[in-house]
Amino acid sequence: MDVVAGVVANSESIATLLVSCKDRKGIVAALAQTLYGHGANILDADQHSDPVAEMFFQRIRFDFGDLHTDRRTLEQAVSEVAERFGMTTRLEYAAKPKRVALFVSKYDHCLVDLLWRWKAGELPCEIPLVVSNHPDLAATVESFGPEFRVLPVTKENKAEQEQEQIELLREHDADLVVLARYMQILSADFLRDVGCPVMNIHHSFLPAFMGGKPYHRAFERGVKLIGATAHYATSDLDEGPIIEQDVERVSHRDSVADLIRKGRDLEKLVLARAVRSHLEDRILTYANKTVVFE
Amino acid sequence: MDVVAGVVANSESIATLLVSCKDRKGIVAALAQTLYGHGANILDADQHSDPVAEMFFQRIRFDFGDLHTDRRTLEQAVSEVAERFGMTTRLEYAAKPKRVALFVSKYDHCLVDLLWRWKAGELPCEIPLVVSNHPDLAATVESFGPEFRVLPVTKENKAEQEQEQIELLREHDADLVVLARYMQILSADFLRDVGCPVMNIHHSFLPAFMGGKPYHRAFERGVKLIGATAHYATSDLDEGPIIEQDVERVSHRDSVADLIRKGRDLEKLVLARAVRSHLEDRILTYANKTVVFE
Amino acid sequence: MDVVAGVVANSESIATLLVSCKDRKGIVAALAQTLYGHGANILDADQHSDPVAEMFFQRIRFDFGDLHTDRRTLEQAVSEVAERFGMTTRLEYAAKPKRVALFVSKYDHCLVDLLWRWKAGELPCEIPLVVSNHPDLAATVESFGPEFRVLPVTKENKAEQEQEQIELLREHDADLVVLARYMQILSADFLRDVGCPVMNIHHSFLPAFMGGKPYHRAFERGVKLIGATAHYATSDLDEGPIIEQDVERVSHRDSVADLIRKGRDLEKLVLARAVRSHLEDRILTYANKTVVFE
Amino acid sequence: MDVVAGVVANSESIATLLVSCKDRKGIVAALAQTLYGHGANILDADQHSDPVAEMFFQRIRFDFGDLHTDRRTLEQAVSEVAERFGMTTRLEYAAKPKRVALFVSKYDHCLVDLLWRWKAGELPCEIPLVVSNHPDLAATVESFGPEFRVLPVTKENKAEQEQEQIELLREHDADLVVLARYMQILSADFLRDVGCPVMNIHHSFLPAFMGGKPYHRAFERGVKLIGATAHYATSDLDEGPIIEQDVERVSHRDSVADLIRKGRDLEKLVLARAVRSHLEDRILTYANKTVVFE
Repeated sequence: MDVVAGVVANSESIATLLVSCKDRKGIVAALAQTLYGHGANILDADQHSDPVAEMFFQRIRFDFGDLHTDRRTLEQAVSEVAERFGMTTRLEYAAKPKRVALFVSKYDHCLVDLLWRWKAGELPCEIPLVVSNHPDLAATVESFGPEFRVLPVTKENKAEQEQEQIELLREHDADLVVLARYMQILSADFLRDVGCPVMNIHHSFLPAFMGGKPYHRAFERGVKLIGATAHYATSDLDEGPIIEQDVERVSHRDSVADLIRKGRDLEKLVLARAVRSHLEDRILTYANKTVVFE
Repeated sequence: MDVVAGVVANSESIATLLVSCKDRKGIVAALAQTLYGHGANILDADQHSDPVAEMFFQRIRFDFGDLHTDRRTLEQAVSEVAERFGMTTRLEYAAKPKRVALFVSKYDHCLVDLLWRWKAGELPCEIPLVVSNHPDLAATVESFGPEFRVLPVTKENKAEQEQEQIELLREHDADLVVLARYMQILSADFLRDVGCPVMNIHHSFLPAFMGGKPYHRAFERGVKLIGATAHYATSDLDEGPIIEQDVERVSHRDSVADLIRKGRDLEKLVLARAVRSHLEDRILTYANKTVVFE
Repeated sequence: MDVVAGVVANSESIATLLVSCKDRKGIVAALAQTLYGHGANILDADQHSDPVAEMFFQRIRFDFGDLHTDRRTLEQAVSEVAERFGMTTRLEYAAKPKRVALFVSKYDHCLVDLLWRWKAGELPCEIPLVVSNHPDLAATVESFGPEFRVLPVTKENKAEQEQEQIELLREHDADLVVLARYMQILSADFLRDVGCPVMNIHHSFLPAFMGGKPYHRAFERGVKLIGATAHYATSDLDEGPIIEQDVERVSHRDSVADLIRKGRDLEKLVLARAVRSHLEDRILTYANKTVVFE
Repeated sequence: MDVVAGVVANSESIATLLVSCKDRKGIVAALAQTLYGHGANILDADQHSDPVAEMFFQRIRFDFGDLHTDRRTLEQAVSEVAERFGMTTRLEYAAKPKRVALFVSKYDHCLVDLLWRWKAGELPCEIPLVVSNHPDLAATVESFGPEFRVLPVTKENKAEQEQEQIELLREHDADLVVLARYMQILSADFLRDVGCPVMNIHHSFLPAFMGGKPYHRAFERGVKLIGATAHYATSDLDEGPIIEQDVERVSHRDSVADLIRKGRDLEKLVLARAVRSHLEDRILTYANKTVVFE
């Protein structure tokens, strides 16, 4: 519910501006003044300065329902401020929800969890497409609505199938790919060409247990907590910017099967929180890290 | 470390502005413009709108080391904006750390924890005074430096001793009273006259187990988590605005003594976090609640 | 996976013995000797003494696949020990999984979560029946397999419908009723006559916010953590023995809608853990508390 | 408080038996029968079977105040059972508290925390000795009572000083060495010759960030949780058996200094829990892991 001064904000007229730039004086005032000067109403503003990287980051959510001018004029004005301060900006409109494609293999827990949350209204997005390298989850996916496409991947056909995946994503206008326990490693080519962010859930507390079989290795090492990590995928496997992490207590009583079971709950929660933060335009990335505004 | 654009901010020239008012358009722009116009450099700004209460809250941390004008002129300009928008404002200078008085009885864990954190530089304040109704902790307190005053409280002398406490607080220019497991109930008169905020640590997850012997009652009820709550003291015992809470897992194996032991760690952590938030001017209160900016 | 000395235990031959009695010497030895003497192999044994209540509790999981005698003879021997020490005992066989009936109203999150875990093999039970006072979730339930029965409840027909519910439970041989956000208060008559334990999920950290609308009241009070509590239902509403609790951090940024959303995740996790503990015969109740063996 | 059947157990007559062996039938019965047969009263018994390693572990706490025989006879009987089943056993008497030596460098938080807990009665041990490679903490340590010995370590004198440390430990009859942020790496020779367990606190969530400067590297990597790990020291640095771990949430707002500050609380809590578990004879190690009975 977006309300300001007693008036419910119309989500049709809500936008989010994400800004990053070299830190310097006057940035906050310049943006606030520009938005206010055009009649936009700032609903939320959060900022962060990284003194080490000398960078400034801001997220401003505003209502443009009562502009003195119009959307194009405001966009133009924001662009001018951006140029003046050397800002990278992104302007997202609530009226245009993101389109998400899910990639999955056989484990269905993250997939079902995301689809359930989507149906329950927790995730402000469209989910037009689910891609899998196995046919097993067709009925599950279709009962929720999205199209389900099977693209089996072998060593031989991988390049070809990734090309096909990219075409599917374009056809469906995907703004985000979520790897919901997709058990294939995406090539650097795919990640370069996909044209939208790719988010992954790794079933360990990164950077511990990067790579395969993290629960087995956690069991072997005798850790007392297991974790899960949502991160953006980069060509360095399991080394992309971390978005969200959480852990759960385990003990000597827990077998590998117990870790896997407890881990499923972690993976679901951590991935869902990361997806939601992305959909609400709360995340900025730099220096292989994330700023996640609350 | 306060750094902006590569320049370490001088804590001598840092101030924090806390604002609350009825929510309306243009507030953010007006404050940012005023600060920027006088040459102040905004280091941090965080805001919150409560759509139910139709209230707006903001915390702005800025460096006034390069003002075009001077501090008084800036203060005047902020006052004018405050009047225009009907704001309640508070301006705090890092160069003038708060003066904290601790009240304690016989349990020393919160007291020692706060004094240790203070010595370690975690708590930006002065601690000139510790008041107790028992003489037991004199040596402990004095080894850390503060003056230790004993004011035993009986049913008969309570009003008188509270008067004495208030005089001590005035003599020591106290800006904050922290009840670090002080086992006397402060009267409504004391709380009205004390002239500064009073913070308390309650050894339960409020509003569960208000009043006395919360660990015994938690044991009796068979809860699976125990908690601690830091809150501002009001004349409604244990019902003041909650600042911070945390919990710890317990089981059927835990006796009352175990709950008390585990609870000590909770009480220390929760109180220390709350005191730190207060000292960093991160807390605004309204409607018997707190906004705690991060 | 049940393994002892390199031999995978056959779940067909696994039993769990739950014992409670007045504490005294020799109990552990008597039971261990009896089981061993008949050729049973103890896989797990956990015990608890409550020195305040002077009570002893034990859970022994054993494999009876290589008995020297037979199951009846062993049961007879256990009964004799039980009588000697004044024990209350319960013997449960893994080969006879419990039969669970779920009660639900319109909120589907706990229901779907339990059904998904059941299908995924996390919950060792049968779920033959779901009862609701609304028809809405028929398709959802039936897609998972259980029979779905609608029994709308009004003030007028409540006694009658509860009678009908009890008959349904008997027809389906229910060993446990789980109230998965069932929004009707069950009468003392129902709880007396139902003939099996009834487990409930309450959407607060009990004993805080007993009764209705806990998230609204938590928001009103300004707490910094919200909770959920799974407990056995008794005729004292929200005052039955607590099985499991957990909490999640909230802040001034969270609206009531946010608390409800975050709370759903808590409710699902807490209820699922409690149900699993019950199904694995890990819970003993006494003095309105639970012992939950790990 | 040790109570059984209404009689407070005398801690003078309490012992703990720790057992590990190849898993096989009859172990539980044999030990219970032996203890009971001599008149010992089992207060607590916990066991664990690792089906992968085919190992059995047990912790039995018992009161030998009413033995029909005597302590030596009982010890003899336990030894015979141990031999029969190929058990490794350890028998510890509450009347003989362990003697702990703390090693520290300049950071005092873990040291002060342990000394405070010791004084408060949370740690059932004697602390006769603190060894440091710096003189800084002499007054702090001596105010709590232990002897403080300074042994500065350089590359040149390391072997010699370690020899001196070992002699000091022998003089003081140390049963446990706790490295409370001791910033020197102990040699394999020291660890082989020291003659008692050595426990360390590492300021990361192992196996993430093994080695030096873990908070700096956690900051660099952009993790969303930091951790601390208590483990037994082995000649493989940071790879010994993990006893206890915990984590704390951090965000993009946290500088390295914030991680260090938040980490101190973690280090204190995690180390204190691990030390307490060791002192209560709750820990068994095998295969570079720990069983920590609750």
